[in-house]
Amino acid sequence: MNEKLSRAEFLQTLAGIVSPAHVLPDSDAIAGNLKEPRGLYNGRALALVRPGSTADVAKVVAACAASRVALVPQGGNTGLVGGQTPDASGEEIILSLQRMRRIREIDPLTDTMTLEAGVTLAEAQAAAEGADRLFPLSLASEGACTIGGNLSTNAGGVAVIAYGNAREMATGLEVVLADGRIVNALSKLRKDNTGYDLKDLFIGAEGTLGIITAAALKLFARPRSRVAAFVGLASPSRALELLRLARDAMGQGVVSFELIPRIALDFVLRHVNATRDPLAERQDWYVLIEAASQVATGLEDAMTAFLAEAHERDLIEDAAIAATLEQRADFWRLRESISDVQKQEGGSIKHDVSVPLGAVPEFLAEATAAVERFLPGARVVAFGHLGDGNIHFNVSQPIGADKAAFLARWEAMNELVHDIVARYAGSFSAEHGIGQLKRDLLARAKDPAALDVMRKIKAALDPLGIMNPGKVL
Amino acid sequence: MNEKLSRAEFLQTLAGIVSPAHVLPDSDAIAGNLKEPRGLYNGRALALVRPGSTADVAKVVAACAASRVALVPQGGNTGLVGGQTPDASGEEIILSLQRMRRIREIDPLTDTMTLEAGVTLAEAQAAAEGADRLFPLSLASEGACTIGGNLSTNAGGVAVIAYGNAREMATGLEVVLADGRIVNALSKLRKDNTGYDLKDLFIGAEGTLGIITAAALKLFARPRSRVAAFVGLASPSRALELLRLARDAMGQGVVSFELIPRIALDFVLRHVNATRDPLAERQDWYVLIEAASQVATGLEDAMTAFLAEAHERDLIEDAAIAATLEQRADFWRLRESISDVQKQEGGSIKHDVSVPLGAVPEFLAEATAAVERFLPGARVVAFGHLGDGNIHFNVSQPIGADKAAFLARWEAMNELVHDIVARYAGSFSAEHGIGQLKRDLLARAKDPAALDVMRKIKAALDPLGIMNPGKVL
Repeated sequence: MNEKLSRAEFLQTLAGIVSPAHVLPDSDAIAGNLKEPRGLYNGRALALVRPGSTADVAKVVAACAASRVALVPQGGNTGLVGGQTPDASGEEIILSLQRMRRIREIDPLTDTMTLEAGVTLAEAQAAAEGADRLFPLSLASEGACTIGGNLSTNAGGVAVIAYGNAREMATGLEVVLADGRIVNALSKLRKDNTGYDLKDLFIGAEGTLGIITAAALKLFARPRSRVAAFVGLASPSRALELLRLARDAMGQGVVSFELIPRIALDFVLRHVNATRDPLAERQDWYVLIEAASQVATGLEDAMTAFLAEAHERDLIEDAAIAATLEQRADFWRLRESISDVQKQEGGSIKHDVSVPLGAVPEFLAEATAAVERFLPGARVVAFGHLGDGNIHFNVSQPIGADKAAFLARWEAMNELVHDIVARYAGSFSAEHGIGQLKRDLLARAKDPAALDVMRKIKAALDPLGIMNPGKVL
Repeated sequence: MNEKLSRAEFLQTLAGIVSPAHVLPDSDAIAGNLKEPRGLYNGRALALVRPGSTADVAKVVAACAASRVALVPQGGNTGLVGGQTPDASGEEIILSLQRMRRIREIDPLTDTMTLEAGVTLAEAQAAAEGADRLFPLSLASEGACTIGGNLSTNAGGVAVIAYGNAREMATGLEVVLADGRIVNALSKLRKDNTGYDLKDLFIGAEGTLGIITAAALKLFARPRSRVAAFVGLASPSRALELLRLARDAMGQGVVSFELIPRIALDFVLRHVNATRDPLAERQDWYVLIEAASQVATGLEDAMTAFLAEAHERDLIEDAAIAATLEQRADFWRLRESISDVQKQEGGSIKHDVSVPLGAVPEFLAEATAAVERFLPGARVVAFGHLGDGNIHFNVSQPIGADKAAFLARWEAMNELVHDIVARYAGSFSAEHGIGQLKRDLLARAKDPAALDVMRKIKAALDPLGIMNPGKVL
């Protein structure tokens, strides 16, 4: 901190902006905001500050700039790489966007809605539904995560193949810069070629270049019909052929295409009540496919015909189509429970990776073999968004092994897997971002010229280094 | 130019890199490269330089940096805002990408292709088709414009509502920076959250931040069926309701939705041979709708049912469905000829604008009335990509008026129209970019904080100011 103001004076300045009730000093009351959900990081903070408007965010940032106080923007605190967690110094403030939860506008004619950063994803989905439209971003933490966080991390989720990441859903942003100025760019336009694409620079920058305070988001027609199928098949390469066939048959109607290995299904059936195997016999691999259509009828027939053709081509072993909404929810519960149940099987070392779609089968075979050689008994649980080439390549500890000893291999296992990812020209962070967790990895693995461009942009937009320092770069 | 090298020595250096045959000094041989297609700008150049590889582009840029020589990247020279045209000083070089036309890879399993910047859009489409895939970017100049230019200007075209602008089609880029370093980021990944989104920063930057030398582009399933309809209706607001209905009925299957006023159809019928009015009676407005589907049959029925419902709701007056490929081509010829035939009606003052979709009808009414008040007899020809809110708001001179006198009102007319666009929170360059033509406008109209961020980025990435100076900023 700059010596001009004492800590107490600085906090008083903040209280003058947002009122004393919204400046919470480090204490048990904000303990939940100081640590990230998996407990990997546990920081300290000068205070948690909760501005209620963009103007107040701007004033808080200006005050931080004047006093050289670093700030850590925070939404729903659901991020998995520590991007929302302050460091251990106790000198940073957490700038929470959670009071900024106004739905500023829904424009059904333009098919956009304008929301403040603290609106949760579930609230955003509900707001769209209230206008008989669809906001298709969907992820496991949607009840808690916020639009600001979704955009700052360019969240992915289970409908990316049809609708894109969070980035593709924003037409405009309102951003507070490192000097407290406000970029008013809440454009609702589908096409606008007036200068550099700043929107996409702030999206995914994890609060290191500016703070997203509001966004204009696209709305879509609500599908009139949806159908889900749970398919058993022999291998990821068959799954890839099946994806191609599904796209040729149903085009952009294929909304989700999720790969699940048998071991993941075993975990879920073992640990989650009232779940059952949708297929009669055990299969090595599964795919959960969901399709959607604007046409009220015929989709189930299309899915049935597609699966029949897949069967004829020997791509699949068996398949079940969800006949009811309840059955569809059951299928999704099997998929959505995987991350959680891994905790009950002991330690788990995670990799959120992507490789070019065509390389997924080879990558899976090579990385699995390497992990099993590296740590005999380790159980690879590789699942996820096959349609995007995004695999959550998680490794559960050997049965009966010591958890701490297993987790001590985290870095070495990461290095092993990420080296293979790199050989396939893949990404070591497909959807979770960099935060603190992968900062060193980014510095090592990113193209040097690209890294240098990133650093130049960071220095140009945040010369004092107060915007979420120690994250990303 | 830096005094260290004489002009001759500098040109010799370049000849040493790309061979003397590919360093063409200013002469008639390069006259076509010195002026932009509408003749608005006509520059001079030290030379036209044609590197044949990324390594050679890098060396040329490094040589320019060392000698402080500015460079103007050029692809197919089809841009409409002078972004590809050198200034009048004769001190800049044109760096043509036209020798870089290798198709480096087509990866049908990953659904990507990797092309060099000088590949024309038509060649790119053909390459995709050769692999039984679709590359959906499509615009009038596709025979000449290049992928590098398409990306540098974030080209739009007639399929944006279904597939997005050029930006949405790129998964990765190779870029030569202002100091001659190469960013190797030809990623084929659909998801990659490792750091700032540099790809989208270089896309649309019009060569002012770096030179795109190659790109990895998405491929799509080729539709099994297509159907086009030419619809007559009373007003743009009916057209907007029709768009909503089309999306509810056919979702992302609606590929094009183009608005055409009667006057544009009149121009085309008058000046283009072998064209005919697709509908029996005159209508005030038309929409050309194209839909595509992965299902081989049923699309025409869906279009027919949709039009019947539209008729029942009194949204449309009449409609014709293209029964043959030839008829479909005829419909499109009516649409694609509009820009060209305007030349035959005398001077034309152009505005490439967008407004929020819901505001299009009001904007059209207000801007048309304002133009007619401003210049009685002026003929508004407002047409274009209604589905994107992108209107080519062109104004043809009054019948019999003096062309030069009319064109002398260009700036005043622009100001009038752009002021109205601004009141609707629209864009004064929806798809053509900034170049030289709208540089002053950008400086006046852009959000000041956003403009400052752009300038900081430019200064950080091109500190010597050699990358296409005088364009955009």
